[in-house]
Amino acid sequence: MEQIFKNLKENTPIIHCITNYVTATDCANILIAAGASPIMADDPKEAEDITNIAMALDINIGTLNTRTIESMIISGKTAMAKKIPVLLDPVGLGASKLRNQTTMDLTKEIQFSVIRGNASELRFLGSQQTQAQGKTSGVDASAHHLIEEDNLDKNIAYARELSSKTGAVIVITGAIDIVSDPTTTYVIRNGHPMMAKITGSGCMLSALVTAFIGANPGEILKASALGVMLMGISGEMAFKNMREGEGNSTYRNRLIDGVFNMNWDILKEANYEIR
Amino acid sequence: MEQIFKNLKENTPIIHCITNYVTATDCANILIAAGASPIMADDPKEAEDITNIAMALDINIGTLNTRTIESMIISGKTAMAKKIPVLLDPVGLGASKLRNQTTMDLTKEIQFSVIRGNASELRFLGSQQTQAQGKTSGVDASAHHLIEEDNLDKNIAYARELSSKTGAVIVITGAIDIVSDPTTTYVIRNGHPMMAKITGSGCMLSALVTAFIGANPGEILKASALGVMLMGISGEMAFKNMREGEGNSTYRNRLIDGVFNMNWDILKEANYEIR
Amino acid sequence: MEQIFKNLKENTPIIHCITNYVTATDCANILIAAGASPIMADDPKEAEDITNIAMALDINIGTLNTRTIESMIISGKTAMAKKIPVLLDPVGLGASKLRNQTTMDLTKEIQFSVIRGNASELRFLGSQQTQAQGKTSGVDASAHHLIEEDNLDKNIAYARELSSKTGAVIVITGAIDIVSDPTTTYVIRNGHPMMAKITGSGCMLSALVTAFIGANPGEILKASALGVMLMGISGEMAFKNMREGEGNSTYRNRLIDGVFNMNWDILKEANYEIR
Repeated sequence: MEQIFKNLKENTPIIHCITNYVTATDCANILIAAGASPIMADDPKEAEDITNIAMALDINIGTLNTRTIESMIISGKTAMAKKIPVLLDPVGLGASKLRNQTTMDLTKEIQFSVIRGNASELRFLGSQQTQAQGKTSGVDASAHHLIEEDNLDKNIAYARELSSKTGAVIVITGAIDIVSDPTTTYVIRNGHPMMAKITGSGCMLSALVTAFIGANPGEILKASALGVMLMGISGEMAFKNMREGEGNSTYRNRLIDGVFNMNWDILKEANYEIR
Repeated sequence: MEQIFKNLKENTPIIHCITNYVTATDCANILIAAGASPIMADDPKEAEDITNIAMALDINIGTLNTRTIESMIISGKTAMAKKIPVLLDPVGLGASKLRNQTTMDLTKEIQFSVIRGNASELRFLGSQQTQAQGKTSGVDASAHHLIEEDNLDKNIAYARELSSKTGAVIVITGAIDIVSDPTTTYVIRNGHPMMAKITGSGCMLSALVTAFIGANPGEILKASALGVMLMGISGEMAFKNMREGEGNSTYRNRLIDGVFNMNWDILKEANYEIR
Repeated sequence: MEQIFKNLKENTPIIHCITNYVTATDCANILIAAGASPIMADDPKEAEDITNIAMALDINIGTLNTRTIESMIISGKTAMAKKIPVLLDPVGLGASKLRNQTTMDLTKEIQFSVIRGNASELRFLGSQQTQAQGKTSGVDASAHHLIEEDNLDKNIAYARELSSKTGAVIVITGAIDIVSDPTTTYVIRNGHPMMAKITGSGCMLSALVTAFIGANPGEILKASALGVMLMGISGEMAFKNMREGEGNSTYRNRLIDGVFNMNWDILKEANYEIR
């Protein structure tokens, strides 16, 4: 895993983000903190060009609109043609027909390397995939909104099945994080509840994972897992550094600061198991 | 008032924000800090769906455009049909014909629960409403750019008249804040001049008030007043926590942190009178 | 130079920014920190009105799209008619045909007072200008991606030539900053490498320079140079204030805080030479 960390730190991969305007600043700063070089661009007229100079693509559907959806499709296809990794973050999947249809279109047109969301979003995704394949009983029955120790086995089985269906590494984040391909699963127990008290924890993690897979295109599963670990440990460090009177806004700064200050000696202590 | 505070903290209302991209991150973080759950979405194709899962709607016309204006109308009507509170923040009203026309259209099509702005914006709004109703002498003559002790009575009368005209609770913020319906006015003397030294103080307050009215739809006046008090006291706390060498950017973090750390024992000490 | 600083602090110029959504918040906050009053607006329907209330215009092509490009042209022409200064920040010039074509169109239609970019962007701009003027050998041959002591003379010559071609003061930022008209060049050696570890250092500097030239329309060269010095010194102060465990996100706050706390006694110690 140390080599995967080094590959990001030493190569400064350009990461093309088509993402929402709520967390774009934070995504850019966390990418720089991790050693990557962000470029946000979402117009169809430059989508292909920008993806062509990038080493990976992060598609995030928060604050999507007709214009940016078109860019997502163009850039996704460009990335596939160029054989660079693409991550999908289906923010708010299930909340509107537009997000649902867009996710359906994106997963049909683009072969994602990684799909990352919370349990609720990925449960909806599984249900969509089942319907799209004409099956009547869905994998979604086994998914839960929160991943906890007592439903962990079911969620691992769910992540593997969703990985098989989509061909993507599945990253489900929550109190416990799951990173899985169809046969191997990383169960990661880092992070802190304060991460849920800021906007953009998920978006930032998606950006970070995109940086890791961009620098390690041959190790999508491991690189994704390491990205999740780095975020979780940074979240713990950020909490330890909190002082009296500080709240979620300062925590957000400390979280990105944690990524900036990360080194292998800290990161190698991540709390995870491989199943 | 304590129950109004508890209703927000305990119910985590989803707040749909159609807002500008300059302060969207800060609005999202202050909503989470206060106990609400923000969702920013501004495309007409999902405006109705998103409002339908929300408990209140915040319409902010900063960085408006043709596409987002359409969403404001759709979401506003959806909120009315669903009978959830809607707040209007007419950012920069008076600065462009587009903002003026949009505000005119919005106030014609949508019954707002609250309209919040600074004295300049709301003076312009009053003038607009007077013209729209074909009157020749406007209430705007009595409005002032800054609310101070020596023009307070006039401004209270102005706020009440504007509340009568619009059917909305009026929130005018400045050194002294006024929260008024046609007959009852909260005069609030919290806050700190540093709040004017960051972008988004007004936008954040509007988001916060939307959260309070979303959690207290039967108490629009009191809930609005409490939101203004919470923001003001947080602004005072933020200033007390400033250290040497810190400036407006750190202040912004401390302001949101203040909202995050607020409890009833602090909030009940707000400096206000009811007239 | 002290008068140039005072003119900004005492006049609170309104600065119209048509800029990207990644760094818009930071640009707004740094403008307030410096004593200016920002207004972000990018819709063609209000572009003219907003520029008409401003004292300077900042055009930044990061996250550009068809709609905002139209606004850039309208506002640029409005600023020219009104004879207020306009700055161009050609973010990512060279990265896409859309950015290249837009920059070409903007420089053809609008007489910029200042063009600010990094060495790579301005090298590309020089090459474009040479082609546009039908010359076969370009000034770009003498430009370098990084400005260092051993290529400084060449870069100064390059900046002067580009200033002649464009009619704008040229600001090239890097480890050493160059601010030049066709005959006089400020070489500024302030700043800190941490400034490259956050998103928006360049965008914020462009906003800051726009504020300085807005408050000093008769002193474009000096005002631009002072803006660059203020940013550089703030970057040094921000680094000195860093504590253990802090990283790039906290640095960003401290950088803006530095601008907020700047006074002439600090600023007059800037490390620069005039050539």
